[in-house]
Amino acid sequence: MSAPTTTTTEHSARQGYGGDPRSPLRVAVLGVGMMGQDHARRLAGLVNGAELVAVSDVDAARTDAVAAEFGVRAIHDPKAAIADPEVDALVIATPGFTHEDLVLLAIEAGKPVLCEKPLTTAPETSRRIVEAEAASGRRLVQVGFMRRFDAEYQQLRALIASGELGRPLFLHCAHRNATTPPNFSSEMLMLDSVVHEVDVVRYLTGEEVVAIRVLAPGSTSHAPEGLKDPQFVIMETESGTLVDVEIFVNTTFGYEVRTELVAERGSVQIGLGVGLVRHSAAGWGGSIPRDFKERFGAAYDTEVQRWVDAVRAGLGVDGPGVWDGYAAAAVCAAGVQSLRSGERVVVDLGARV
Amino acid sequence: MSAPTTTTTEHSARQGYGGDPRSPLRVAVLGVGMMGQDHARRLAGLVNGAELVAVSDVDAARTDAVAAEFGVRAIHDPKAAIADPEVDALVIATPGFTHEDLVLLAIEAGKPVLCEKPLTTAPETSRRIVEAEAASGRRLVQVGFMRRFDAEYQQLRALIASGELGRPLFLHCAHRNATTPPNFSSEMLMLDSVVHEVDVVRYLTGEEVVAIRVLAPGSTSHAPEGLKDPQFVIMETESGTLVDVEIFVNTTFGYEVRTELVAERGSVQIGLGVGLVRHSAAGWGGSIPRDFKERFGAAYDTEVQRWVDAVRAGLGVDGPGVWDGYAAAAVCAAGVQSLRSGERVVVDLGARV
Amino acid sequence: MSAPTTTTTEHSARQGYGGDPRSPLRVAVLGVGMMGQDHARRLAGLVNGAELVAVSDVDAARTDAVAAEFGVRAIHDPKAAIADPEVDALVIATPGFTHEDLVLLAIEAGKPVLCEKPLTTAPETSRRIVEAEAASGRRLVQVGFMRRFDAEYQQLRALIASGELGRPLFLHCAHRNATTPPNFSSEMLMLDSVVHEVDVVRYLTGEEVVAIRVLAPGSTSHAPEGLKDPQFVIMETESGTLVDVEIFVNTTFGYEVRTELVAERGSVQIGLGVGLVRHSAAGWGGSIPRDFKERFGAAYDTEVQRWVDAVRAGLGVDGPGVWDGYAAAAVCAAGVQSLRSGERVVVDLGARV
Amino acid sequence: MSAPTTTTTEHSARQGYGGDPRSPLRVAVLGVGMMGQDHARRLAGLVNGAELVAVSDVDAARTDAVAAEFGVRAIHDPKAAIADPEVDALVIATPGFTHEDLVLLAIEAGKPVLCEKPLTTAPETSRRIVEAEAASGRRLVQVGFMRRFDAEYQQLRALIASGELGRPLFLHCAHRNATTPPNFSSEMLMLDSVVHEVDVVRYLTGEEVVAIRVLAPGSTSHAPEGLKDPQFVIMETESGTLVDVEIFVNTTFGYEVRTELVAERGSVQIGLGVGLVRHSAAGWGGSIPRDFKERFGAAYDTEVQRWVDAVRAGLGVDGPGVWDGYAAAAVCAAGVQSLRSGERVVVDLGARV
Repeated sequence: MSAPTTTTTEHSARQGYGGDPRSPLRVAVLGVGMMGQDHARRLAGLVNGAELVAVSDVDAARTDAVAAEFGVRAIHDPKAAIADPEVDALVIATPGFTHEDLVLLAIEAGKPVLCEKPLTTAPETSRRIVEAEAASGRRLVQVGFMRRFDAEYQQLRALIASGELGRPLFLHCAHRNATTPPNFSSEMLMLDSVVHEVDVVRYLTGEEVVAIRVLAPGSTSHAPEGLKDPQFVIMETESGTLVDVEIFVNTTFGYEVRTELVAERGSVQIGLGVGLVRHSAAGWGGSIPRDFKERFGAAYDTEVQRWVDAVRAGLGVDGPGVWDGYAAAAVCAAGVQSLRSGERVVVDLGARV
Repeated sequence: MSAPTTTTTEHSARQGYGGDPRSPLRVAVLGVGMMGQDHARRLAGLVNGAELVAVSDVDAARTDAVAAEFGVRAIHDPKAAIADPEVDALVIATPGFTHEDLVLLAIEAGKPVLCEKPLTTAPETSRRIVEAEAASGRRLVQVGFMRRFDAEYQQLRALIASGELGRPLFLHCAHRNATTPPNFSSEMLMLDSVVHEVDVVRYLTGEEVVAIRVLAPGSTSHAPEGLKDPQFVIMETESGTLVDVEIFVNTTFGYEVRTELVAERGSVQIGLGVGLVRHSAAGWGGSIPRDFKERFGAAYDTEVQRWVDAVRAGLGVDGPGVWDGYAAAAVCAAGVQSLRSGERVVVDLGARV
Repeated sequence: MSAPTTTTTEHSARQGYGGDPRSPLRVAVLGVGMMGQDHARRLAGLVNGAELVAVSDVDAARTDAVAAEFGVRAIHDPKAAIADPEVDALVIATPGFTHEDLVLLAIEAGKPVLCEKPLTTAPETSRRIVEAEAASGRRLVQVGFMRRFDAEYQQLRALIASGELGRPLFLHCAHRNATTPPNFSSEMLMLDSVVHEVDVVRYLTGEEVVAIRVLAPGSTSHAPEGLKDPQFVIMETESGTLVDVEIFVNTTFGYEVRTELVAERGSVQIGLGVGLVRHSAAGWGGSIPRDFKERFGAAYDTEVQRWVDAVRAGLGVDGPGVWDGYAAAAVCAAGVQSLRSGERVVVDLGARV
Repeated sequence: MSAPTTTTTEHSARQGYGGDPRSPLRVAVLGVGMMGQDHARRLAGLVNGAELVAVSDVDAARTDAVAAEFGVRAIHDPKAAIADPEVDALVIATPGFTHEDLVLLAIEAGKPVLCEKPLTTAPETSRRIVEAEAASGRRLVQVGFMRRFDAEYQQLRALIASGELGRPLFLHCAHRNATTPPNFSSEMLMLDSVVHEVDVVRYLTGEEVVAIRVLAPGSTSHAPEGLKDPQFVIMETESGTLVDVEIFVNTTFGYEVRTELVAERGSVQIGLGVGLVRHSAAGWGGSIPRDFKERFGAAYDTEVQRWVDAVRAGLGVDGPGVWDGYAAAAVCAAGVQSLRSGERVVVDLGARV
């Protein structure tokens, strides 16, 4: 194992991870099923400062196809991808049961990892990774609990931390999926879905969960035979906040994730698609964007990304062009004239160029 | 002018604009006031495939400061930036009255431009640009009507185009700002703000505006002396859709932009912060995300971008780490145990590593 | 004129209108089409302190049928109903063109009238009634602008009057109906529907309307041939508040009436079915009921009315009975036991009695 | 016991309860604290077909004051009020511990009772009443679970009964009060508040509750010392629907009662103040009023009640008068003129009469 470690050290010296921050991070995606492909697309076309350099999957044909799509290397053995000197960092999106081995190898290789949840499928194996990373003396492993990057969860956490509404008393959560893949078991509602809510509780309250109880009422007729769906989960945190989770994964339609905080002086819901909705002495309601950056920031991001993509592809424009600018100018000039005269003004653009 | 043209031709051959699509687009931002700085930040740290290489502003001190912040070249003369052979494309965010000259120069130089709205401040000058681009034989100029990249406007446009609700009869629009900068004139409500609504109308209906009328009721007491604020604008499109716009730029708080389509068989509102809300024979309401990608796509994007940034900065992790993965695994394992036993199960994480 | 006046004086002496407030008011409904029948039902079974004593309609068969349904007198000539000494007051729900004659007769007879809108179909005839009532020296005629009794309009009016949001700048109104009856003319959109909005504007602002303009964009294909539907109405009030009304009476579904006030420091919408929704510096939102009376007041009213009706009909109970009381008591007792023990408690009701 | 029974028989023969349905029901209210006074006001001024004839309370001074306010008899002994031959029926709003005796007496007297919840404070005593009523051979006792008369609960029940969304899996309930009166005990959260939710569950599902469990997380700091507030209640119905209730009675503000049904093919929320909000394959949303009766029915009821009250009080009008009718007619006539000419038309009302 000494060789890879050495390699890594040299390597990190030249990669920006402790090296030149201007050179892009060379990332390999391990596991290119639905989730892994999504991450590959993200790294290849959206994320600034990274370069997708390889994909790897035990399914060799899939690996080759995805590699061809993105014009990157196919590495058939994920362990080889971890060891590869041209790979600076790894996104792991393989099935959960493979995570332990792959993450431990990456730690050994000193390479940063973004590992899809769950970290591993059992507390013992996760604990082993915790200890391995601690022994390495560096922070190398991030877990893909992506809700922590969602604006609503971040705002709710900040609100709890501010103490403005007092101590959290309840978190009422619901997690609903349209359908489950084949072979989804009753345990997987917990391991695959509620795991997100567990992290949410820890993230929002800053406390550990100290007890859990799961109730399984009668199943929906839309669940596959033998699957206990829905379930109802009750958790308690260190300070006594009570958490309930409705987990229901065969609703037949849509994806709904909701959290309601009930605190001493008010309650707040997120996941309604409308930002934080607060109920307090001031009434119910939400906030209004301060300015156009808040309202249209994502549109600006998309505009510029698509313009850059269009220019690089030799198209020049991917959006409103000069005729649009001209037509708007003509209408506005007529508007100014109407403002002065109080009359209706006809707009004539002339022939389309 | 032949030299720059020659340069550009060579240049575009090597830049991806007709050249290698793998090399990043080198962009200069002209005008680094509030909007230009925002674009500079976007190009430097978020957009994939572009490289911010220079900033330029008639305010030399500001140019230097912004250039230093992003570690790029300061070019004090915007025209020099356009001609610079190390610059592939331009984002123009200078004041509107300078746009005509700068955009014409860029067209002459054959360099793609993303020009903030308005294209120019008068129809005559905009028309001149339309003709210059047509004469160049290439599409080079995109105008910054960013609402076309907002998901709600895109969905509303698709809905209109589908014909599902019949012919558009009305568009009721409101555009409200908290305050205006000093020296904001009554005409600027039209030229600076309503110009967005004009483009929205053209984008949504696919029709030109053929007539306009502006009413100015009594002004709000919060408007600067002499400013006619609010105003009420009525426009007619080619096929007779009636558009009304409340434009109110000193509401004292917030930013609110709203559009309601009223068509033959239903109405749809956007800008409520909750996606499209439709009123039709089926009742009122909106849609539910299909899956987690729709609901949490932006969170995934942010997660990976921040992880890449953290790794390049030598931090390794910027988000949930292995302890978080371990704690979640432990709670879920206890949950599975409870599902089987029906009993409350205590979770013990052991000492924090 | 002396005779009827004398009669009225005697009469009012014995009727509660200046007489015994404990005796019920004897009301006749003139015109028993859809609206008149609705008022008859209301007076017969819901309103306290009134007694429906007669109905009258030029359609004799309809008069007889409705009279039989409510067990009251049929009076075939509405003028006879006005003169009838057993009738204390009148609800007029006949077609608008008959209102002038009937209301003038009622004033002459000194009998109070609740007259459905419009008061009359032309300003000249309405003015005649204004003068006749003034000459009578008493207030006798109320007009059926029922929106003034809607909680949302009342709250919005109080909010405007409080001055909290500053001067009203705009009222944006929409009035939408599913379909129109046969022979509905373009003028009737104004006379039959917008008339409500005119009263709303006057009620909310406390000002008269000083100018009006009506625009008719292209009609919906669902409108009967020749009907200009929708229309767009712009009104100005004395102090300069600008009012716009979308009037659209063949939407093919539903009934939607909405008003948005835009004032100097905030805006408020009503008609969303959710009370007042305010946008102001505090964000957007509404109020929360203070107590159960506010939330469930109408349910209590219905409960008691239905119980009284059931008891009078010899049924004794029309709602939850003793078994419901017993079952609730048993579950709550088990709940108290669980609160003390922390355990799940089984509830056994025994055999149903 | 024979005497009262005899009296009652004669009596009911003349009262409409088996007697003349035209004569009003003579009602006494027992207990005139907050709730009883509210019922007295309702019976005296709003409910049609009833007459408040007496009030009775163990607090003699309060009885006299309330009797004077409504101009009815004060009967200091509630049992005397039950026996009184001038009293046809009773509303019982005394404290819960007195209900058993009073209701049993009323059953014995053969007089109909509307008894505020709880029927009694223990299952044994409630069961005694069930048996007494059964033995009487008549339905005489209605329990004040007023939510069954709320439109939203009624609509939700109808939706469940229709089977459209499949079998009910969960009912998520929340019941929140601003504050509790002095001496409110931990058990009273169950007996006084959750009792409503128990009835709601039984009403909505048509099933009995078969098991219950109550969890008490840490109390809010706003609760009086020793009060376990909030609590979390879990109930199971006969067919396995799982019910959870957040009961929280010291939120410091407002009154919030909410129920969410989660069924096999969709979920529905009530108590948001916006009617039923449904989440299903069609998206989220609610219904639109069909017509003006649905939207403004309550306004019509209020209009006519207030007009009747005003006329009986000698005021003639309590709402819009003839000037309002005239002004509306004048504006509408101008509108018709504008519709024809397309021009702005000035409205001149002349001098106010």
